[in-house]
Amino acid sequence: MALLKIADLHASLSDPLLERMNFLNEITLRYPNAISFGPGRPYEGFFEVSRLREYLDAYVAYLEKDLRQSPDEVTTSLFQYGRTNGQIHELVAKTLANDEGIHVAKDSVVVTVGCQEAMFIVLRALFAAPEDVLLVSSPCYVGITGAARLLDIDMAAVPERDGQLDVAVLRQTIHDLRARGKRPRALYVIPDFSNPSGSSMSLENRRQLLALAGDEAIVILEDNPYGFFVGSGDPKPTLKSLDTAQNVLYFGSFAKTCFPSARVGYVVADAVVEKANGERAPLADELSKIKSMITVNTPAIAQALIGGMLVANGCRLRDTNQEKIAFYRNNISTLVRALEQHFPAGLHGATEVRWNIPEGGFFLVVTLPFDADDALLETSARDHGVIWTPMRYFCLDGAGDKQLRLSCSYLTPERIEEGVSRLASVVRQKLGR
Amino acid sequence: MALLKIADLHASLSDPLLERMNFLNEITLRYPNAISFGPGRPYEGFFEVSRLREYLDAYVAYLEKDLRQSPDEVTTSLFQYGRTNGQIHELVAKTLANDEGIHVAKDSVVVTVGCQEAMFIVLRALFAAPEDVLLVSSPCYVGITGAARLLDIDMAAVPERDGQLDVAVLRQTIHDLRARGKRPRALYVIPDFSNPSGSSMSLENRRQLLALAGDEAIVILEDNPYGFFVGSGDPKPTLKSLDTAQNVLYFGSFAKTCFPSARVGYVVADAVVEKANGERAPLADELSKIKSMITVNTPAIAQALIGGMLVANGCRLRDTNQEKIAFYRNNISTLVRALEQHFPAGLHGATEVRWNIPEGGFFLVVTLPFDADDALLETSARDHGVIWTPMRYFCLDGAGDKQLRLSCSYLTPERIEEGVSRLASVVRQKLGR
Repeated sequence: MALLKIADLHASLSDPLLERMNFLNEITLRYPNAISFGPGRPYEGFFEVSRLREYLDAYVAYLEKDLRQSPDEVTTSLFQYGRTNGQIHELVAKTLANDEGIHVAKDSVVVTVGCQEAMFIVLRALFAAPEDVLLVSSPCYVGITGAARLLDIDMAAVPERDGQLDVAVLRQTIHDLRARGKRPRALYVIPDFSNPSGSSMSLENRRQLLALAGDEAIVILEDNPYGFFVGSGDPKPTLKSLDTAQNVLYFGSFAKTCFPSARVGYVVADAVVEKANGERAPLADELSKIKSMITVNTPAIAQALIGGMLVANGCRLRDTNQEKIAFYRNNISTLVRALEQHFPAGLHGATEVRWNIPEGGFFLVVTLPFDADDALLETSARDHGVIWTPMRYFCLDGAGDKQLRLSCSYLTPERIEEGVSRLASVVRQKLGR
Repeated sequence: MALLKIADLHASLSDPLLERMNFLNEITLRYPNAISFGPGRPYEGFFEVSRLREYLDAYVAYLEKDLRQSPDEVTTSLFQYGRTNGQIHELVAKTLANDEGIHVAKDSVVVTVGCQEAMFIVLRALFAAPEDVLLVSSPCYVGITGAARLLDIDMAAVPERDGQLDVAVLRQTIHDLRARGKRPRALYVIPDFSNPSGSSMSLENRRQLLALAGDEAIVILEDNPYGFFVGSGDPKPTLKSLDTAQNVLYFGSFAKTCFPSARVGYVVADAVVEKANGERAPLADELSKIKSMITVNTPAIAQALIGGMLVANGCRLRDTNQEKIAFYRNNISTLVRALEQHFPAGLHGATEVRWNIPEGGFFLVVTLPFDADDALLETSARDHGVIWTPMRYFCLDGAGDKQLRLSCSYLTPERIEEGVSRLASVVRQKLGR
């Protein structure tokens, strides 16, 4: 029998990063009755099977009436291989203009199999030499660091503090890397309600980052899966809507605003590429060559369902999402209230158990007076029936040891309250109280 | 304005391989009225929009009755993020047993976004070090060579002659590579009705390859998109069905047997991996870590449609495909007849224009007495209204200059005859007759 040794397979497969996410999945499968603050999945109460037919019908009507396709052309659109960069790129561009004030040519939109494929393709395009370095925050979303590992891309982490990236530190990091012969190429950020921290960048920090990108010729990779879900305060402008120099590549997803199972995401790649012959074209054209060798194209049938939702809502998802926005707003404030209730200052005061108060989104970070490691996670799931994500999974720089991420998107308010009560029992037992 | 230079982007983007496929697409778009022997797309006459609803209903019934899912669980299955390695893996395993005599555990099946993603993931897993080499035939399908370019994987080409790979040459190539400090890891083949050559491996050649894989510890990557479409003769057993040592990874696709727009493919990865702690598990488990960083999971909604087709047909696609099989059989024999008619020995005899006679599939190769290059392709499309693919696109070793690939899957018999007549006028003009 043929036997492959793990040491002979790609290094990412022996990387603790990918192992750890696997461990989290295993724990979730092993304790199905535990309340899980693990996944950043959307709440399922908004899904209705009967709507699928409606979305498909709306898309077919759009093909017939707006694009004036014949019945044969409609069949081709729905069943055949499609355009590499997608078929609903125009609808996505319109929606971005309506919802985000991001105005871009439709040909700069690459429709992908979830935002993950968009990140993977962009990394492959931008990172060419062994000395190229990706700048990330610490903590950072594992989807980008995991994709970078698959491509053997070096990373440098800059600490995030209350959602802000210190541009002086960032600039120094860039200069230090260059002094060592490295080439920092891009910086990945989630400015709104970040995963995992839940924090948001101030408008001032956004402007500083854009200025830095221009000064230092760094591409900003802006990921915005949660921007709709404003809790308190006003929504802030995206980096892309403030970007006048095509320094920002903007990643979007319909997983949370529509539904995840279509796996439709996109990247706006209007940065300009100069070819060997001097011709210029949007980066999107180059990305299409890469996409054709990874997934060929995004399933037309999945695009049809998301496209149908977009046309049925006049390419305005913000209005359509009001109910969801209210739900998640209530969830995050329920989570904060439950933490305040179960960890009163007298019992587990500010010096012991702390948490941030996000302005929206799905996530929040709790800091404990002891290690939040895999052993504690297992005890927590087995003996107390509550699951969370160790923050160390998200930190390249060894930080986050005493922190855990709570995701509240997938749960009802009742389950959130019960889950925090269980978390309190984990802490009490650990502290011997 | 930020400007990215192509030389600073990943080398694959400056690779002639990816540029060339782009040129073919451009030509096809620029001359929409030309008869195109270019794409290996399935014929569209078999697609019916109304069937989509039927497939979805069949899948929902399967979830309810066979998997005993509650209405809430059905909603989760259809709308939520899904299992990384897929939800219809059991249905795929059953279909493989019924249609191909391939008997594997369902957990060794990884459901992917088309076969392309499966190839990409497998390459990423197997190729770890700069000295690792992928063995391919020449000519070879661009999907695998393109994916290898994205991952900076070295390739070595072994000439294919009439669909056969000379195992003595292959063994010598492996030994030569090892003598140079290289590590040949895997060999990619399409044994049945290959893309681009249209040729098939003899049973003897299949057995030789399997023996070689065992002797030399080489993994065989068997890609089988066209195996159903037998023209003349009996179907031959796949390498995987003959593989008793888990040396073969088997790639499959539903693009041709169901429809392309779902983008559902798979790989059977039952090869055994030994981890650092001595534990053993199927390679599929490791592939799931990689897939989670590329597309997270295959769209559940696309899997539902293909899954619905499978359950509706009792997990037997061969019977269901009888009409398609007959159609493609007629197409390939129409193509051969038209070539015989338009290139009679007297005018453009055996020494001038030659072609192979495939036993089935979508493709055939014509050899001309002059170069079949991009310039001729442009003339052919513009002045004669016929498009084909230069075989040089598929050759890493500089062969194929005077050859072109004709694909007959997408056309009606009438268009095939007219297309060959136009091709004859290209040849006549070039030869000045």
